[in-house]
Amino acid sequence: MAGVPLSEKSLIEGVRRSVGRAGRSALRLGIGDDCAVLRLPMGHEALITTDFSLEGVHFRRNWHGPEVVGHRCLTRGLSDIAAMGGEPLAAFLSLALPAKLSQKWVHRFLDGLLGLAKQFGVPLAGGDTARSPGGILADIVVMGSVPKGRAVLRSGARVGDAIYVTGSLGGSAAAIDRLRTGKRASARDYSQHFRPTPRVEVGRFLRDRGWASAMIDVSDGLSTDLAHICEESGVGAEVEAGLIPLAAVGKQRRSVDLDDALHGGDDYELLFTSRGRVPATIAGVAVTKIGRVVRGRKMLLLRAGRRSELKARGWQHFRGS
Amino acid sequence: MAGVPLSEKSLIEGVRRSVGRAGRSALRLGIGDDCAVLRLPMGHEALITTDFSLEGVHFRRNWHGPEVVGHRCLTRGLSDIAAMGGEPLAAFLSLALPAKLSQKWVHRFLDGLLGLAKQFGVPLAGGDTARSPGGILADIVVMGSVPKGRAVLRSGARVGDAIYVTGSLGGSAAAIDRLRTGKRASARDYSQHFRPTPRVEVGRFLRDRGWASAMIDVSDGLSTDLAHICEESGVGAEVEAGLIPLAAVGKQRRSVDLDDALHGGDDYELLFTSRGRVPATIAGVAVTKIGRVVRGRKMLLLRAGRRSELKARGWQHFRGS
Repeated sequence: MAGVPLSEKSLIEGVRRSVGRAGRSALRLGIGDDCAVLRLPMGHEALITTDFSLEGVHFRRNWHGPEVVGHRCLTRGLSDIAAMGGEPLAAFLSLALPAKLSQKWVHRFLDGLLGLAKQFGVPLAGGDTARSPGGILADIVVMGSVPKGRAVLRSGARVGDAIYVTGSLGGSAAAIDRLRTGKRASARDYSQHFRPTPRVEVGRFLRDRGWASAMIDVSDGLSTDLAHICEESGVGAEVEAGLIPLAAVGKQRRSVDLDDALHGGDDYELLFTSRGRVPATIAGVAVTKIGRVVRGRKMLLLRAGRRSELKARGWQHFRGS
Repeated sequence: MAGVPLSEKSLIEGVRRSVGRAGRSALRLGIGDDCAVLRLPMGHEALITTDFSLEGVHFRRNWHGPEVVGHRCLTRGLSDIAAMGGEPLAAFLSLALPAKLSQKWVHRFLDGLLGLAKQFGVPLAGGDTARSPGGILADIVVMGSVPKGRAVLRSGARVGDAIYVTGSLGGSAAAIDRLRTGKRASARDYSQHFRPTPRVEVGRFLRDRGWASAMIDVSDGLSTDLAHICEESGVGAEVEAGLIPLAAVGKQRRSVDLDDALHGGDDYELLFTSRGRVPATIAGVAVTKIGRVVRGRKMLLLRAGRRSELKARGWQHFRGS
């Protein structure tokens, strides 16, 4: 929270006005001092996550409108809080802007970000601004909290646990596939890509009931994120291809390809393991059993009666494209 | 904490090894999950600050060695914690690297950052990595804590308070002045620029004794940072030019120009106001009275018996140069 170029002063003051010093009770002091000051709920510990949203890496200006970039930027942070079963308390935005960028773009970006922030009751409590030497650079920090010792980790999966996923997978990758071909993709037809919903309610519910033994959000793709759980828990996994909930996209609501669901990133669904039975719907979101935790360290895919190794090859944003 | 490109996996694992899961007792869970988990000391509230370090804006690779960039990157965050009178608990680094950058650069950068982190007992608890579309992009987040309601704000200055500054000013701007002319500047001769020391001990001491009514770190330059205190406190200020401690730089230890001390940024000293007398040295650091808080909203400079308005024109990093 230093080094604010004068040219961005109006931006900061705009944010300050729209956020005010209000917000949830956790925030004691927001934008306008060296640090933000936050009070945690009694008996809670703090969760912190940081995520870049870089032009040309995580978004493209000709593919993504400013509101979409802002919405997706905060989604990345809220989704990480959800994956721990936490409550989001406040967000911090470091934002570097190219000299030629219009104020309108910035305001629409903030509209998208603050719209989602409002929906989750999360004040924008601070950050940094700078002139960017290249494209638009954003880094979102979200602080949350969780009752002491109750955060749902990646390391808690045990042999015999069932593997579940919320919502559907592959919708975001399918939108990118389409955009790459030069076609347009509307926010309505590809809402999972343009307006993802961080699963904060579901995460909180699972943590509260003690139903999730391990949890992660599907930001890098199912195969990569499941590999993270396996690695941290020291277990293997078996996934049944036929059980994976494929996102329905486009005007015809066609199902995405299995590969997009297996390896596509940025879906911001929750992937978790559980020892017991889990309802088919939590907080209005479908929850689907897709496999089980097994011995060993390998991930296997069961498809049409055949078993093959499932390699982690999560989607690496737009690099190399 | 998502979207780690595979090519940076070794980097993350390197950091993980060097940081481990150890660190201070505040850190319950570090790198390797969706969020870090931290426990605050009893009766404390959380402080959060985020600061960019962008190539071409905050540093230049031909001016600043990788260790210096890493050291200065974390200094920005620790200095903000110091300015609230806080205790730093953990740091988080979002780091985007160009494809062509050598692993050696990255390791030396981390050496500089982690060296300072170790000195202040601050574990690197998380962050994000990405491929940079342009130069090297770092965003440092530091979380700290302070006893509830005891953070030293910018808004507490009252008419009649004395104005103090730690250490000396202008040393960082003098180094930039020299580098701009194409000359070399060594870390030994310009230590304030290349190896600034965040004044964490002094800040903590001032907060503990209740001696500082308002405080800020001198990151944007004395004139700009004092203006922040005046603005937030609704007061004016009178500064005596002859009292400002000028940094001594170069082999001859010559004093910097007054302009560098008034408007040069990145000194990371503390600027604070106080109602009482303050010792000349705190935690081994010189503390100098440079003026007083007055009625009104203007800042005045007293120089050779003449009074002129002091305008906030803090140094804006390297922009436009």
